[in-house]
Amino acid sequence: MEVPPPEELKQPLVVPYKLLMGPGPSNPPPRVMNALTHPILGHMHEEMFQIMDDIKKGIQYVFQTKSKLTLALSASGHSGMEAIFSNLIEPGDRVLVLVNGYWGQRASDIAKRHGAQVKTLVQIGDTFSIITIDNAIQTFRPKLLFIIHGETSTGVCQPLEGIGEITKRYNCLLAVDTVASLAAVPFKMDAWKIDVAYTGSQKMLQAPAGITPIAFSDRAQHVIFTRKSEVPVYYVDMKILGRQWGCFDSSRTYHHTTCSSLLYALREALALAVEEGLENRIEKQKFCAQKLYEGLQNLGFEFYVEEEYKRLPSVTTVKVPQGINSNEVVAYVMKKFHIDIQGGLGPTAGKVFRIGIMGYNTTPEKVAIVLEALKDALHNCRKSKF
Amino acid sequence: MEVPPPEELKQPLVVPYKLLMGPGPSNPPPRVMNALTHPILGHMHEEMFQIMDDIKKGIQYVFQTKSKLTLALSASGHSGMEAIFSNLIEPGDRVLVLVNGYWGQRASDIAKRHGAQVKTLVQIGDTFSIITIDNAIQTFRPKLLFIIHGETSTGVCQPLEGIGEITKRYNCLLAVDTVASLAAVPFKMDAWKIDVAYTGSQKMLQAPAGITPIAFSDRAQHVIFTRKSEVPVYYVDMKILGRQWGCFDSSRTYHHTTCSSLLYALREALALAVEEGLENRIEKQKFCAQKLYEGLQNLGFEFYVEEEYKRLPSVTTVKVPQGINSNEVVAYVMKKFHIDIQGGLGPTAGKVFRIGIMGYNTTPEKVAIVLEALKDALHNCRKSKF
Repeated sequence: MEVPPPEELKQPLVVPYKLLMGPGPSNPPPRVMNALTHPILGHMHEEMFQIMDDIKKGIQYVFQTKSKLTLALSASGHSGMEAIFSNLIEPGDRVLVLVNGYWGQRASDIAKRHGAQVKTLVQIGDTFSIITIDNAIQTFRPKLLFIIHGETSTGVCQPLEGIGEITKRYNCLLAVDTVASLAAVPFKMDAWKIDVAYTGSQKMLQAPAGITPIAFSDRAQHVIFTRKSEVPVYYVDMKILGRQWGCFDSSRTYHHTTCSSLLYALREALALAVEEGLENRIEKQKFCAQKLYEGLQNLGFEFYVEEEYKRLPSVTTVKVPQGINSNEVVAYVMKKFHIDIQGGLGPTAGKVFRIGIMGYNTTPEKVAIVLEALKDALHNCRKSKF
Repeated sequence: MEVPPPEELKQPLVVPYKLLMGPGPSNPPPRVMNALTHPILGHMHEEMFQIMDDIKKGIQYVFQTKSKLTLALSASGHSGMEAIFSNLIEPGDRVLVLVNGYWGQRASDIAKRHGAQVKTLVQIGDTFSIITIDNAIQTFRPKLLFIIHGETSTGVCQPLEGIGEITKRYNCLLAVDTVASLAAVPFKMDAWKIDVAYTGSQKMLQAPAGITPIAFSDRAQHVIFTRKSEVPVYYVDMKILGRQWGCFDSSRTYHHTTCSSLLYALREALALAVEEGLENRIEKQKFCAQKLYEGLQNLGFEFYVEEEYKRLPSVTTVKVPQGINSNEVVAYVMKKFHIDIQGGLGPTAGKVFRIGIMGYNTTPEKVAIVLEALKDALHNCRKSKF
């Protein structure tokens, strides 16, 4: 053997427990983690199809949609962006992206890679008004409007109600990234006339990362089936993938080998959402976010998103106080308390702390723990500077 | 709520155990399944980077390569194809694909979607000679030659030695799909001058599906960094993804949220390969395949790939005997014995049975079990016809 067996792999795997209070992933509950260990099933087994059907129903519930073309992509959250542009956009098509942070920037990057003419409206850390959106659509006449509902880099939550009516008026598709917002705030795909939405598994849904719920409206489905060119990315080609998921009135055909372990975990995560009820979960989120806001204010933090109604209750951003190095605080909290909080990302890098309360960690106790840790960190990290 | 909580998700999740003796996935060993339940880590945590480094070393060992640009894609095996064409091919580039079954057909489909001029050499169920390959490259002058090492749809194993020398002579990149062959037969990425290779996690490597080891040679890396157009698929853009995996001499930057559970499982699967040793595993595979061949011959089966040296030892294809319906046999074996074997796929649909011996199931005992089941099925399914 030219390349000998590496010594590192002769050592045991050691994974410490950490309390994940950043912008995701979060710690899943035991029922979800246990589901990972169920025996592997083949991707075309009857029992697997049953589980996939359960998942489809669960996604329809959490998205509040009756869309038939509903499934989970075997990839991490941002693959949802890739799936949207790959399926709905052809070279030369116009795309309007509302950018209020890092994820809007990435969406615009991916749309360009798919040959779209991209126009962005940029308001980092703020929301967009209906009038701004209406004007932009009227002028630019995009085929698709892309919105990040909950922007984890800035902690902004973009209101969605009323936008669907505008896009319909101009025959524009409405695409929404709900990776960090779903099940934290209300979301009604059908009632709000949204054409395609996806979410993250590893945040409010409390499953591991790597599996991405997505749903396309009938209108979006029609666009896919009448497009002129082939979908460029086979891995997310809904015409083929939808057949494996039994989304069309045709027999199931093979597209790819799904990860049954992740599907079990997602199924159980969705079952927990059903058990708890979306309304209750959203109520709990609001309550815990309030507790966090109060605590952060008491510690003297200033909010990056000043107006409370514009804040995403799952990820709170506060400004890094004068005389404090954000990296130092993040490292301190990790080292001393084994708690994950994060600094900024993209446009907020170095400027904010991002504190997440998600899924299984959405409890007043966890909020109290992270506040205690921050208090200690502020005290000790400030001290070290003077 | 317009879409009420679905009743199906109020039922408990039930997953039966099945012995997976088809073309993959296979049953992972307990150590790998247990690894799935370790606590979730953030994708940018130090401990995660350590595990990713271990994985990189493990992939370098099983591929026998020193390539720096070595990592695991957060997606199922065929995403390896997408990564190859997306990173190495620009519109108009020429690609030559050796098609000896379904997977070669898919590779050619994906290459076309990426704008390549594709030429295929087709020999379903057979291997290609060095002379055929040399002539085709000399005439067509492709930028990249794509080969399926182990074709699960037909059970053919394409010899690779000597091809790298030819491709180098014509300044052509050599890409190899080892999804079903790696760790079943020898594979030497560097010694055989292969520029890019990927494999499946859920087959010989004995991990769950959904995480795909891939490595690019320095030559391939150079092509990626000097291409004119942007890599069209962000999700597999090696220039960015490679930074998260620490493949370049630069600090790590975020690309996507990895699934830590799958990375733990892959790490342990690679540790088992190190522990056992590649040579021993390949020897064991040969031994078990021999046992299977003998047993199938005793049952009166004819091999789809007549010459034994052309067979892939992890997936054996035998012709469906006269008077037998392959679907009936597959269903019978599943129903009575809870064993997964498969019928044909693509060009072999309805024509063959595909019996896999992979990873943890590569034992003489498992071979004996599947042979017993087949014997019973042949007897009972034939009887039902007359």
